[in-house]
Amino acid sequence: MKRILIDMDEVIAEVYPKFLDIYEKEFGRRPEQAEFWGKKIYDMPGAERIREYLHHRGFFADLPVIQGSQEVIRELMEDYEVFINSAAMEFRYSLQEKYDWLEMHFPFIPFRNVIFCGDKRALRGDYMIDDHARNLRTFQGTPLLFTASHNAFETDFIRMNNWEEVRNFFRERQGD
Amino acid sequence: MKRILIDMDEVIAEVYPKFLDIYEKEFGRRPEQAEFWGKKIYDMPGAERIREYLHHRGFFADLPVIQGSQEVIRELMEDYEVFINSAAMEFRYSLQEKYDWLEMHFPFIPFRNVIFCGDKRALRGDYMIDDHARNLRTFQGTPLLFTASHNAFETDFIRMNNWEEVRNFFRERQGD
Repeated sequence: MKRILIDMDEVIAEVYPKFLDIYEKEFGRRPEQAEFWGKKIYDMPGAERIREYLHHRGFFADLPVIQGSQEVIRELMEDYEVFINSAAMEFRYSLQEKYDWLEMHFPFIPFRNVIFCGDKRALRGDYMIDDHARNLRTFQGTPLLFTASHNAFETDFIRMNNWEEVRNFFRERQGD
Repeated sequence: MKRILIDMDEVIAEVYPKFLDIYEKEFGRRPEQAEFWGKKIYDMPGAERIREYLHHRGFFADLPVIQGSQEVIRELMEDYEVFINSAAMEFRYSLQEKYDWLEMHFPFIPFRNVIFCGDKRALRGDYMIDDHARNLRTFQGTPLLFTASHNAFETDFIRMNNWEEVRNFFRERQGD
């Protein structure tokens, strides 16, 4: 059975609504999408301190699930070995929070198929769905870029704009 | 740079002193090494409930460091990319505890080089040092079995009885 590695933040867990709330709290207004298109919200001029929130307890605990991810992953598991993986090591509290989040929203994924890592270079699989080009670049299988604001201008990879596109991509392959 | 994947429990973290204490508390005596040679202590007849302690908060927090592991890993890092990995997903509290343990005892290992997973099949590297034959069997690089009571009768792998032997093994290779 071929193995698909699936990232968490901005692939199955929605991070942006929370970042927008934080931005609004810090700067008194909600930014336009055009302002952070092609970058992370904390890479906007003057917004660097927003990144600090990733280290706060609770940041990862209550993120919404990205639309369609649960149904499509459940389908994929019929034909593929699905591993969820996340670069969680930088953020001390994220480990427990991500673990509990998966148990709540993806209880059908066995704990054996979860990986928290610092860097994805040491992972092995046939497909990787990720929003970060740097993770896809070191992957030896087929890389699939899941669209997020920060990767809007990335052109090196097959792009998945949503989970419906992921479903269609793998339906054509039928386990291959 | 070639990559060495190094396991935690029974490779750099000493688990048995704690298991022996638990056994003594539960059964009123300390078992002889011969009684659990070739198996896990909780696989001794009647001792199954000892495995439950792995789920307790604090179990992994204060394990002693296995002799020589710090010095030898520091040396290996000059010639190799070292990743610490642990099958932590089964035990909810172990994630945070193992994270803090590494930070305390192996502060020279960057967070990027740490992986907590459920199953090691999806890891990639050139060498794997592990006490479990099942992890080594699915590994595509060179497997090295680190001696522990439960693997005493395993004969399928190159065996490392201690960290001095690991040092010598890699000294001969000099990065290769």
